[in-house]
Amino acid sequence: MATLEIHNISDELPLLFVHRIPQFGVFFKTRLLTKFRLFDPLSPSEDSDVDALRNSARVLLCVGPSRVTADTLAQLPELRVVVGSSAGIDHIDLDECKRRGIAVTNAGDAFSADVADYAVGMLIGVLRKVNAGDRFVRRGMWLQGSDFQLGSKVGGKRIGIVGLGSIGYLIAKRLKAFGCAIAYNSRKEKPSVPFQYYRNVVELAEDSEVLIVCCALTDETYHIINKDVMRALGKDGVIINVGRGNLVDEDELVKALLQGELGGAGLDVFENEPGVPEELFKLDNVVLSPHKAALTPESFAAVEDVVFSHLIREEYNYYS
Amino acid sequence: MATLEIHNISDELPLLFVHRIPQFGVFFKTRLLTKFRLFDPLSPSEDSDVDALRNSARVLLCVGPSRVTADTLAQLPELRVVVGSSAGIDHIDLDECKRRGIAVTNAGDAFSADVADYAVGMLIGVLRKVNAGDRFVRRGMWLQGSDFQLGSKVGGKRIGIVGLGSIGYLIAKRLKAFGCAIAYNSRKEKPSVPFQYYRNVVELAEDSEVLIVCCALTDETYHIINKDVMRALGKDGVIINVGRGNLVDEDELVKALLQGELGGAGLDVFENEPGVPEELFKLDNVVLSPHKAALTPESFAAVEDVVFSHLIREEYNYYS
Repeated sequence: MATLEIHNISDELPLLFVHRIPQFGVFFKTRLLTKFRLFDPLSPSEDSDVDALRNSARVLLCVGPSRVTADTLAQLPELRVVVGSSAGIDHIDLDECKRRGIAVTNAGDAFSADVADYAVGMLIGVLRKVNAGDRFVRRGMWLQGSDFQLGSKVGGKRIGIVGLGSIGYLIAKRLKAFGCAIAYNSRKEKPSVPFQYYRNVVELAEDSEVLIVCCALTDETYHIINKDVMRALGKDGVIINVGRGNLVDEDELVKALLQGELGGAGLDVFENEPGVPEELFKLDNVVLSPHKAALTPESFAAVEDVVFSHLIREEYNYYS
Repeated sequence: MATLEIHNISDELPLLFVHRIPQFGVFFKTRLLTKFRLFDPLSPSEDSDVDALRNSARVLLCVGPSRVTADTLAQLPELRVVVGSSAGIDHIDLDECKRRGIAVTNAGDAFSADVADYAVGMLIGVLRKVNAGDRFVRRGMWLQGSDFQLGSKVGGKRIGIVGLGSIGYLIAKRLKAFGCAIAYNSRKEKPSVPFQYYRNVVELAEDSEVLIVCCALTDETYHIINKDVMRALGKDGVIINVGRGNLVDEDELVKALLQGELGGAGLDVFENEPGVPEELFKLDNVVLSPHKAALTPESFAAVEDVVFSHLIREEYNYYS
């Protein structure tokens, strides 16, 4: 096997081909360099033979949500695995990977607790108006004696979780401690879970006061939270989205919020990030967040471990 | 007994004397009027004989944090009970009540869950920068590509709860579900509680990353969170105060935050409400709130029940 020989002869570390958009750096480069020879097309060394590197790359490190299209893959004929550093892998062309027999790994559960914490924080922020109260104080309105409208109690709320994976389960666990009543929707009922299952999202919305959206984005879940779901949730209903922007029909969401047909929303993700519909900026019943529910230094360290393990397993196993 | 006779002869409902500051209305007047004759000195009916009413009042409804001083009490010679509508009763002169044999009741646990929820919301807000992220988006900084500094994970944090009453216990219950490690300080160790006890607040602070202040305000707890405690908590430490402003030495807190000697704070209460130190307005690691942790429509309904029960028991038992 030519590549193996080159590897042995030159005593070089195995090649790790990096795929990223400029906004996302390689976040644990020093550690990676102990086991891999990195090639990053966005910062190539001068003497790199890019074509040769593309032709020999077996492992692609996909940083954050950088899109891996069929075109990206076509440039990497020897590719065996895409190691993703995010929880979702909807930015990777999974059909093409399947067709070519390329494995795809993600960050696993490394981000799950942080996303769950953040979802609960945004929910309390919306229901109890923590964010609106903060603005109220900072604008001097408390001192002026302005009225502040009260929020709504967290305990006793009927919560519908859309997507009961590791994130959804951790959200449920947290909200149970607040005295909330949990139900969920997912592709299949989970027999080991003590929460009520709804096959249909509209029916879940009808029986819920809050929907928390944390399923994977696929063709089936695109705009899973549509106008019908919002109408079923009702005018006091709250939507929290920590999944992907495209899970929610954003135009309909904005309309419903502006027309008072929804009670509030907590949004970490949007359809056109970093674009956020500006009509939302004036609303006090909305908590906005720059897609960072998953991100803490601690979760980065956990992701580093997962990604590193995947890389080591994939690359070193291949040679062993 | 003269009052009893008057009561029977006139077939009037028992008198309920109201004590409030203008900012606080009587929040369940309609229901009270089914069982009581209300007299509110701030909105007297024209023909009221205020002196006679003061002289006959046996039950005082103290609305919210309206101060009941020795002078207030001196004007009510027949007073038997002060029924408070708030959780804390530090605004009532308890020594004078004791001397005169006047009972004092509070809202009991009716507010506790809401305060606990709010404390957790502010903690996530500070640690995960939920509020700062909201401002970041609304100011258009995400779209401009500005940097946003990550927060810190909730799970695994060592939390010190100062005052493990009903509120503190509910905070502990919630934060356990996030994977936090709980310890507490209170006057006495609580044998039935599975959390580590610290007799000394400075030692609790040394072993904690977050202090949540939710004890009652008394002479002993005034400025319980002083400079020494803040120094022990350290420069990444976070203080959440949902108790009373005077539990924390606010001048020292502001200094510590401005000089980077504390990691952040979530403050629902302040020493000179509604005054809030304006130096805090520019800080992103601080969540400010207009003393409303306890307040939701649901908790008001619960408080209504507690206060109403106290009033019925006190007043009707007296005549029975």
